[in-house]
Amino acid sequence: MERFEHMKLDPTQVLVMGFASVILIGAMLLNLPIASVDGRSVGFLDALFTSTSAVCVTGLVVVDTGTYWTAFGKTVILILIQIGGLGFMTMATLFAMVLGKKISLKERLIIQEALNQSTLEGLVRFTRYILLYTFLIEGIGALFLSFRFVPEYGLAKGVAYSIFHSISAFCNAGFDLIGYGRSLTPYVSDPIINIPIYLLIILGGLGFSVMVDVINQKSFRRLNLHSKMVLLLTAILIGVPFVLFLVLEWGNPGTLGDLGFGGKLLGALFQAITPRTAGFNTIDTGALTNASKLLTVVLMFIGGSPASTAGGIKTVTFGVIIFTVISMIRGREDTELYGRRISRSIVDRALTIGVVAIALAVFTTMLLAITEAGLDFMDILFEAVSALGTVGLTLGITNRLSPLGRVIIIFAMFVGRVGPLTIAFALARRQRKNKGTVRYPEDKVIVG
Amino acid sequence: MERFEHMKLDPTQVLVMGFASVILIGAMLLNLPIASVDGRSVGFLDALFTSTSAVCVTGLVVVDTGTYWTAFGKTVILILIQIGGLGFMTMATLFAMVLGKKISLKERLIIQEALNQSTLEGLVRFTRYILLYTFLIEGIGALFLSFRFVPEYGLAKGVAYSIFHSISAFCNAGFDLIGYGRSLTPYVSDPIINIPIYLLIILGGLGFSVMVDVINQKSFRRLNLHSKMVLLLTAILIGVPFVLFLVLEWGNPGTLGDLGFGGKLLGALFQAITPRTAGFNTIDTGALTNASKLLTVVLMFIGGSPASTAGGIKTVTFGVIIFTVISMIRGREDTELYGRRISRSIVDRALTIGVVAIALAVFTTMLLAITEAGLDFMDILFEAVSALGTVGLTLGITNRLSPLGRVIIIFAMFVGRVGPLTIAFALARRQRKNKGTVRYPEDKVIVG
Ligand SMILES: [K+]
Ligand SMILES: [K+]
Repeated sequence: MERFEHMKLDPTQVLVMGFASVILIGAMLLNLPIASVDGRSVGFLDALFTSTSAVCVTGLVVVDTGTYWTAFGKTVILILIQIGGLGFMTMATLFAMVLGKKISLKERLIIQEALNQSTLEGLVRFTRYILLYTFLIEGIGALFLSFRFVPEYGLAKGVAYSIFHSISAFCNAGFDLIGYGRSLTPYVSDPIINIPIYLLIILGGLGFSVMVDVINQKSFRRLNLHSKMVLLLTAILIGVPFVLFLVLEWGNPGTLGDLGFGGKLLGALFQAITPRTAGFNTIDTGALTNASKLLTVVLMFIGGSPASTAGGIKTVTFGVIIFTVISMIRGREDTELYGRRISRSIVDRALTIGVVAIALAVFTTMLLAITEAGLDFMDILFEAVSALGTVGLTLGITNRLSPLGRVIIIFAMFVGRVGPLTIAFALARRQRKNKGTVRYPEDKVIVG
Repeated sequence: MERFEHMKLDPTQVLVMGFASVILIGAMLLNLPIASVDGRSVGFLDALFTSTSAVCVTGLVVVDTGTYWTAFGKTVILILIQIGGLGFMTMATLFAMVLGKKISLKERLIIQEALNQSTLEGLVRFTRYILLYTFLIEGIGALFLSFRFVPEYGLAKGVAYSIFHSISAFCNAGFDLIGYGRSLTPYVSDPIINIPIYLLIILGGLGFSVMVDVINQKSFRRLNLHSKMVLLLTAILIGVPFVLFLVLEWGNPGTLGDLGFGGKLLGALFQAITPRTAGFNTIDTGALTNASKLLTVVLMFIGGSPASTAGGIKTVTFGVIIFTVISMIRGREDTELYGRRISRSIVDRALTIGVVAIALAVFTTMLLAITEAGLDFMDILFEAVSALGTVGLTLGITNRLSPLGRVIIIFAMFVGRVGPLTIAFALARRQRKNKGTVRYPEDKVIVG
């Protein structure tokens, strides 16, 4: 482990500079006239917007992916998504290992041994495992999606669509080729599309280490605390919103109202899964009730699990904050869960990420409120949280944003993607360095 | 101190039951036909709404205070405000003392000595000091307000109006008699009204112990940490929004746009002071830009200082959270400020109050989104946070709320008033009791 820390590059710098470089290269490629169907360059701002959205696996778009881009443009976007999703998951998993997260013995044997041989070779071997895991799941996903797309679009286009949407779903990118901004709405009642997409989104959002832990341990009780938390929170954060969306949208003619019973169930489940943080939609997001929109904003803010392809403050961060509060209310000094306590420094990191994320959401929304004065407040709040959480859902304002608004969203997507991990890593290193420094005398204040 | 803890009644029960009783008595009085100008009862729901709003010093109203109520009704409201504001400040200051907040020696001599003689007699003497402080400030405030109100309304009505608005301002109640829902808008450019109201709101929102500390120490450096934090945060939370409101509303014809330079300054300063948590307004809140509305929501959420007449999560709670995050980012283990560290248990209390308040705000807004499906999202978010923070500002929907919506706001006002203090006190007692209980083994999770 130490070896990795002794490398010359600060890992957070690698992350930020790496992402920025890939985004810029992507923007230059998408800016080429051959990327656009009409043969004219999309313009650098919108090329940058699209590239950032793809690399940060957000899915917000200013031009319709399915109809605007050529096969070249679509391929560039797909590669950017794969690099962004995979690169982030790899980096985040490495960071977690460097920070000394407890992992299972077998996981350690697989990864740590590889890393300890020599830094570069270790990285290569480790990355190979993540690649294998990713391509295997994406391949299976594409296979199942092809049962619908091949009959509908023919063999070549059908296979290409299956691969594109499988990668986009697993990487939680939310880009679609269905065209005319419809996302997956034509398939709202179609289990052949819904079920593979559900599973791809959820698996992509769990994280590599949880997947390895589950495969190795096979029993929930033997999983490490991190895996238990991820699975518990994922179940709660899908189950509760599923019921709420079903109730809130049951009679809404703009969303679930006109669907059959099965369609209502599939549609509500999709709406519960997609805000964390896939970004596809099968019902018209803009037609949701205000209560459902607010619930979606909360889910987008929380996002998926750490060291995965998903965004947001992450399920575990949310969980640590909630379990800390529950422990406090029960009068316990520690954050407790499954007979374990979570260390103070991790609670502090979770708190910091939560507070910084709220501040960023308020700040971004306020900036958009200034640049997009004519737009509805819910629309801009939704857009800001969607960009910061790298979700990609929208109430339909993305392509109506002013140039300044687009710049704000570009920054929000980038900060939303690299921010939480960078903060968590930087805090952990500083906390470690500052052990045993001078403490000030304690003093009291009143709160509440 | 121990004596107070050994009393048979749990202090939080006294607070909750006491407030509930006063609210019910007030509702019964306001429900009488003699309270209404038209000679017919307002109906129990709206009487309860008004009484809750008065006792919780919120200021949200479903009928116009100035034109709907008789002199009897107005007097009942004024008494409810004074009981609510004064009662809360007294209770909260006592709680803080019981929790062993460090207070200055002289403050201790004044209060603690009194309390130590015998519980009942001590309470009476202590309450007498708070009463003196309150009536002195309210009297001076009324005197200055009378310079405008007596020439305008004649001697009797002018004096009554001066007293009413002075009490309403010091208690951060926000009820006004100007009529037709105008609040203080006719006086937007009038320094004779603005300056006394500013000072009354700010003094009422500082808290008794800070006031005593300032009077005793005279120099900022010698103040205790709590007083320093209150003064620092109050200055920041007025100064920064003042500049922002000035910039955001400078050219807005619905608010500051048509005012002269002095009026712009006075109006922006009023808008910066009133969300924490006075609830008067001199400019049309509904005409603010979305950015200003969002800023107002944030300020209403934070509120005034602990153990004062103000509501919200409190400046110090907000400050502890922010300073904790800043300390974390600087890589320090402790929350540090002015060369002191803030104890872990206080940080935990602040965190708990912050998280519970956010959850309550989201929950209340979601309920209102369901019961008031036709209303704009910003309008209901604003109303929910205003009620929970006992602020009383509105974007104009209070009297358009459905009966169910009114019930939700009644609960929100009550919970918003007694909640933070009850939580803080209950947590502090449990933390104290649970010192030295069994700790679980530590385990790690990844956040971010
Ligand atoms: K996404
Ligand atoms: K108020």
